Amino acid sequence: MPLWTIHHSAGVYSDNDKQALAAAIVQLYPILPKFYVGTAFHEHAPSTLFIGGKPVENFVRISVDHIARQFSDEALVDRWLGMVGDVFRPFTTDRGLDWELHIDETPFKLWLIQGMRPPLPNTDQEKIWMAENRPVVPA
Amino acid sequence: MPLWTIHHSAGVYSDNDKQALAAAIVQLYPILPKFYVGTAFHEHAPSTLFIGGKPVENFVRISVDHIARQFSDEALVDRWLGMVGDVFRPFTTDRGLDWELHIDETPFKLWLIQGMRPPLPNTDQEKIWMAENRPVVPA
Amino acid sequence: MPLWTIHHSAGVYSDNDKQALAAAIVQLYPILPKFYVGTAFHEHAPSTLFIGGKPVENFVRISVDHIARQFSDEALVDRWLGMVGDVFRPFTTDRGLDWELHIDETPFKLWLIQGMRPPLPNTDQEKIWMAENRPVVPA
Repeated sequence: MPLWTIHHSAGVYSDNDKQALAAAIVQLYPILPKFYVGTAFHEHAPSTLFIGGKPVENFVRISVDHIARQFSDEALVDRWLGMVGDVFRPFTTDRGLDWELHIDETPFKLWLIQGMRPPLPNTDQEKIWMAENRPVVPA
Repeated sequence: MPLWTIHHSAGVYSDNDKQALAAAIVQLYPILPKFYVGTAFHEHAPSTLFIGGKPVENFVRISVDHIARQFSDEALVDRWLGMVGDVFRPFTTDRGLDWELHIDETPFKLWLIQGMRPPLPNTDQEKIWMAENRPVVPA
Repeated sequence: MPLWTIHHSAGVYSDNDKQALAAAIVQLYPILPKFYVGTAFHEHAPSTLFIGGKPVENFVRISVDHIARQFSDEALVDRWLGMVGDVFRPFTTDRGLDWELHIDETPFKLWLIQGMRPPLPNTDQEKIWMAENRPVVPA
């Protein structure tokens, strides 16, 4: 469900960094099946990423789509974005990289995994997908 | 209007596959001018695409924006997503590739083709764009 | 806030073009801090971008996310999209390139810059960020 797209300047992340960051992002969603969480990295060569009209070579621009859950509670948003900051700080600010992140919320009903429509939140079927960590055809 | 962005592991699709898939996607929108339908492929090298925090090399992650039409009817959604599954199955499941797809709906009013605002749905002007398969300046 | 993603056929833009286009996009947002405006270019090799099911090699497909502001007024939308057309015409139509653009509006509350939640529109704090052209920790 959540799809994290990480646009980053060329050369700032090793394969190990990407692996560590992708694993840390999964930890932000303890209530979801792990396989719901996707992370895609896009490397940007110089002169292909601009902030404020100026080319940047030390920037990470993160764009996220939330599908399986939507936030209703402002206090929860604030706390959860704090956790997001904790995940990214070692991969950005602490390395002298600037960063920005935004999240969109997209319709639950327009979503397919392996051609199946995922179970509704907090259903028994979702618990099965979570326990098996894969999409399971309803019995 | 619909923009299909297909993130895929490196090497899983030939140019012919991409051509066939792009053509099949157009068939999902018989009521729209064909030129409304865009498809962009992004190849992912190993260590740039992760599912559940693990690197994947046999995955297709599809992200779609719908602009010209929005779904209002749940039965129609279900039938149409079934057609989407039929389009993708030969290019994914049948080849041992895992896949996930989600669709966002974006505002009709914030849309330009060749600098023109496209005609409203089901208008005479839209029929002209459809018949000519190109944007036509209103007479 | 606004993130402009410009998918373009390979070879149609020089580094100077990209710099000029990114700078022109910033001018579309005189009321925002300049550093809110991001522009990412993605070059598409032949057989990776299709319109109407046909491969294109002279196309520019622009996808925008608006975060900091949302449009409420139709007259303003129309005028502002006219300005967008003026920005892109020299980089598209005037060079024989076809183009399409759409904008999504995403939730203000789900947005971080350098780990901080940006100030609300038209606040004193936003004026400080604008004057200094960088995120400033509240006093």
